[in-house]
Amino acid sequence: MNISLTLELVAVGVCAVTGVLAAEGKQVDLFGVLVLAVVTAFGGGTVRDLLLGDVPVAWMRNPYYLLTAMLAGLGTFIVARYRSLPRTVLLVADAFGLALFTLIGTKKGLAFGVTVPVGVMLGVITGVAGGILRDVLTGTIPLVFRPKIYLYATAALCGATVYVLVLHWMPSEVVAAGSSLATTLALRLAAIRWKLELPLFHVRR
Amino acid sequence: MNISLTLELVAVGVCAVTGVLAAEGKQVDLFGVLVLAVVTAFGGGTVRDLLLGDVPVAWMRNPYYLLTAMLAGLGTFIVARYRSLPRTVLLVADAFGLALFTLIGTKKGLAFGVTVPVGVMLGVITGVAGGILRDVLTGTIPLVFRPKIYLYATAALCGATVYVLVLHWMPSEVVAAGSSLATTLALRLAAIRWKLELPLFHVRR
Amino acid sequence: MNISLTLELVAVGVCAVTGVLAAEGKQVDLFGVLVLAVVTAFGGGTVRDLLLGDVPVAWMRNPYYLLTAMLAGLGTFIVARYRSLPRTVLLVADAFGLALFTLIGTKKGLAFGVTVPVGVMLGVITGVAGGILRDVLTGTIPLVFRPKIYLYATAALCGATVYVLVLHWMPSEVVAAGSSLATTLALRLAAIRWKLELPLFHVRR
Repeated sequence: MNISLTLELVAVGVCAVTGVLAAEGKQVDLFGVLVLAVVTAFGGGTVRDLLLGDVPVAWMRNPYYLLTAMLAGLGTFIVARYRSLPRTVLLVADAFGLALFTLIGTKKGLAFGVTVPVGVMLGVITGVAGGILRDVLTGTIPLVFRPKIYLYATAALCGATVYVLVLHWMPSEVVAAGSSLATTLALRLAAIRWKLELPLFHVRR
Repeated sequence: MNISLTLELVAVGVCAVTGVLAAEGKQVDLFGVLVLAVVTAFGGGTVRDLLLGDVPVAWMRNPYYLLTAMLAGLGTFIVARYRSLPRTVLLVADAFGLALFTLIGTKKGLAFGVTVPVGVMLGVITGVAGGILRDVLTGTIPLVFRPKIYLYATAALCGATVYVLVLHWMPSEVVAAGSSLATTLALRLAAIRWKLELPLFHVRR
Repeated sequence: MNISLTLELVAVGVCAVTGVLAAEGKQVDLFGVLVLAVVTAFGGGTVRDLLLGDVPVAWMRNPYYLLTAMLAGLGTFIVARYRSLPRTVLLVADAFGLALFTLIGTKKGLAFGVTVPVGVMLGVITGVAGGILRDVLTGTIPLVFRPKIYLYATAALCGATVYVLVLHWMPSEVVAAGSSLATTLALRLAAIRWKLELPLFHVRR
């Protein structure tokens, strides 16, 4: 198992945990928790792969993905009963997952020959669509649409854009990927730390 | 029209009826009712076929499917105005539909060469995703995530697992299919009868 | 840029504006507004293309689509702060978009060789699915399922049916397309003007 797959599985596990935690106070049972874990972890990549037509979708081809999401979901279900979870650690881990998924999505889109704006958009979709589906399934307006989440999608957008720009001017995959990850992570963590927000939509009467 | 298609059309019709009934008290009109009928009846198979990349999806290739769902939806719309529906009959019919859809989904997944856990998962998706979409469209947290539905998805999971296990140790398609249907049906009906539930998700403060 | 693409881009822009306006009073930020613009504008076509297996989906192949939806979304975000929008103009423009998207969807379905009822259904899906996704994402039961929207989907259904019928008896693409557009538009505008509604679903106790 190489380092890239390991990193991805860590990101899958973290997303699954955040999926489960969204069920707090919603009268959801063990099955619901496992579905939320899987949907949050694979939703973004699935939407991307369906739009690109790359099927069967990625997580169906390697059993480690499903196993990781299920174990993370089951583990959270059990542990959350007896211990409060370390929210700060989870927020940082989730920012890392966002950065990684965005990078993977952007790269995959470009590899399929879409234009640069669509590639960036596929990166953002890969990063945030799992959380959107999670929120739809738990009956709330997606967190990522709202100011109080602090630049979640914006961080992904910047990370994906940086990847494309760096690759254009300095054709090194490693530098581009590293800059992208660093940008998303830094922006997201800074936004949490200093409560940075996008402007709210407001309609004049 | 062979027996397998007839059984499937019955299951489609029953799912369509349950889709319509979910609109009770929600200010939905005739068009909404027909969409809910179609989405509930074909949602699970559609998600499965999209994930597998088997498109155009199954119900688009045989006009009987669409016709059955539409007539069931329209019939429910009319009948429900004048008579109360036999809820017990519907619950039993729905359990049969769940068993059949789960079996069909598991078989199709394995026929497309996915691994056994993913095949079981596709069976469960085929059985329950239509109901999840129905609940999302009517603005409620999916019933199947909640304890009070009494082992709906769990019955599907056991039925799909039994199919795979029986086929492994005793390579008879008929025995495996029969055992799977019997397992899902028996577990679901027993759960309704004795109010069996999965444990609820609970977060410690 | 030919006339057909121009018309389609206008329809995309109008759908994007209606997507943004659905966010009114929902605490949605700039990112949420842009997602709602894109989802409303491309949701119908995307569902249709996924069901047909025509991927990568249409809007990913021509950057003008994404650009139009984004600019319309951004423009609405800015303008709505300072001026009230001309709702009547928007309603008429939206009726035109519905007519055009329905026609495009029906034609595309038939070109992919589906049966006539499925072709009509794909036309309706292309016309209304974007709005359904918009409503799911903003946490409301889809407007198009409810009587007070005044024959939205029904207008699309009649427009798609007229296209198929005219083409059957008088094989002129132009006449069929024109009749379809006129039917959807006329029915929709008449329904708004005289508040025509489909019957409501009602369950007898």
